[in-house]
Amino acid sequence: MSTPVSKDEAFLQFLLRMGDNTLILGHRVSEWCGHAPALEEDIALANTALDMIGQTQMWLGLAAEVQGEGKSADDLAFLRDAWDFRNVLLVEVPNHDFGRTLMRQFLFDAWHSIQLGRLMKSSDERVAAIAGKASKEAAYHLERSADTVVSLGDGTEESHRRMQEALDYLWPYAGEMFQSDDVDAAMVMAGIAPDPAALREEYDALVTRILTDATLTIPESRFAHKGGRNGAMHTEHLGHLLTQMQWLQRAYPGAKW
Amino acid sequence: MSTPVSKDEAFLQFLLRMGDNTLILGHRVSEWCGHAPALEEDIALANTALDMIGQTQMWLGLAAEVQGEGKSADDLAFLRDAWDFRNVLLVEVPNHDFGRTLMRQFLFDAWHSIQLGRLMKSSDERVAAIAGKASKEAAYHLERSADTVVSLGDGTEESHRRMQEALDYLWPYAGEMFQSDDVDAAMVMAGIAPDPAALREEYDALVTRILTDATLTIPESRFAHKGGRNGAMHTEHLGHLLTQMQWLQRAYPGAKW
Repeated sequence: MSTPVSKDEAFLQFLLRMGDNTLILGHRVSEWCGHAPALEEDIALANTALDMIGQTQMWLGLAAEVQGEGKSADDLAFLRDAWDFRNVLLVEVPNHDFGRTLMRQFLFDAWHSIQLGRLMKSSDERVAAIAGKASKEAAYHLERSADTVVSLGDGTEESHRRMQEALDYLWPYAGEMFQSDDVDAAMVMAGIAPDPAALREEYDALVTRILTDATLTIPESRFAHKGGRNGAMHTEHLGHLLTQMQWLQRAYPGAKW
Repeated sequence: MSTPVSKDEAFLQFLLRMGDNTLILGHRVSEWCGHAPALEEDIALANTALDMIGQTQMWLGLAAEVQGEGKSADDLAFLRDAWDFRNVLLVEVPNHDFGRTLMRQFLFDAWHSIQLGRLMKSSDERVAAIAGKASKEAAYHLERSADTVVSLGDGTEESHRRMQEALDYLWPYAGEMFQSDDVDAAMVMAGIAPDPAALREEYDALVTRILTDATLTIPESRFAHKGGRNGAMHTEHLGHLLTQMQWLQRAYPGAKW
């Protein structure tokens, strides 16, 4: 994107990116509920999903406030269509098997925990407060997903093979988290958020350490699928996810528990 | 169902059963569009789906007229929720592989062609007219699905195994098409439609002939899953199908091409 954006518009976009990442990944992880390979994992995944949906409420709640159109976090979650979502493509790819789900979680958690650590020093107090709350959860998610990636990567022949396949499939989706654009430039100028590109070194060091422990090989290519966080293009999977996620509010507008 | 029903209410239920069968099966078959194993099959399946959606427009159009609430066929197709659908469970089970899709089609087409033949003599001229139009298409569908069932059943070792698995899976869903209730009794009384149970002998003879040609074994059990055509209970699959099928009208109410 080369169109200059106002600070307010950039701030809204930034908040949607944060909230849509946790919303879409939270929904994906929730799809495991009742289907995980072991009860312990089922509960852990459901809790992870709940944490991410909780974080979404904070990010999208602030986004709605900044937008100033009288909308709620629920409106933004359930009444936007695919082209208005700003999540990275990584979080919308299907779960596939347990291994790929946990590898996706690890690749996201590693970025998320670094990002939230920086956002705790945001010039915007509301952003700093949300990041402070979310970073405790993200640190725990990262510990769990990293442990699982190591256990399965350095596990049986089959689990190793599956984790390597998961990494090969997902790695091209990691790069998008570090792409900078005008929205990011405006956030950096305002002291609200770091430049995404500036997180890459720390991310690579962390990810390399864990994946090496897991006896897995990081693909050499730096090719990155992109278009999610700036809304230029989503995968076909997002629309299908939204039909499921938004069904209730679409069929019964305004329905409450 | 043991509650007596008025003739008008029974007629509406009968029309929903006819229209929902072709709507749900038509949608299922349309899911193959762009994915069938050969171009010829892809086009044939898409045409079959279109025929069934066309028949749906006639059945649900008449249902809406009989209902007298100012609704259209589209309203009935896109704005009802799962519990208001009256299709047999057979048509809502997932496609699985090409073999199961064609076996499901054959088991439905065999019933459908017999049923439409009887409905051409309905005391209600509108029903007879719709049946007359639909029966030509149904006869062609039956010819195609029966041919394919024979080719694959009496084909390679793998295709035979898959078709037998498809038959074993689907056979318990065939019985529901022949279950009679108060709605049917009212239709028989009014001379509008035959007693479903009265079609079973002709169906069994037809199906046995084709499946014998296909070198397949009909399961001995007469156990039948039911609850779809009287709305008592649908499979979990119907709700998921509706989220996909109804998405556009739910998200953009009143949208037109």
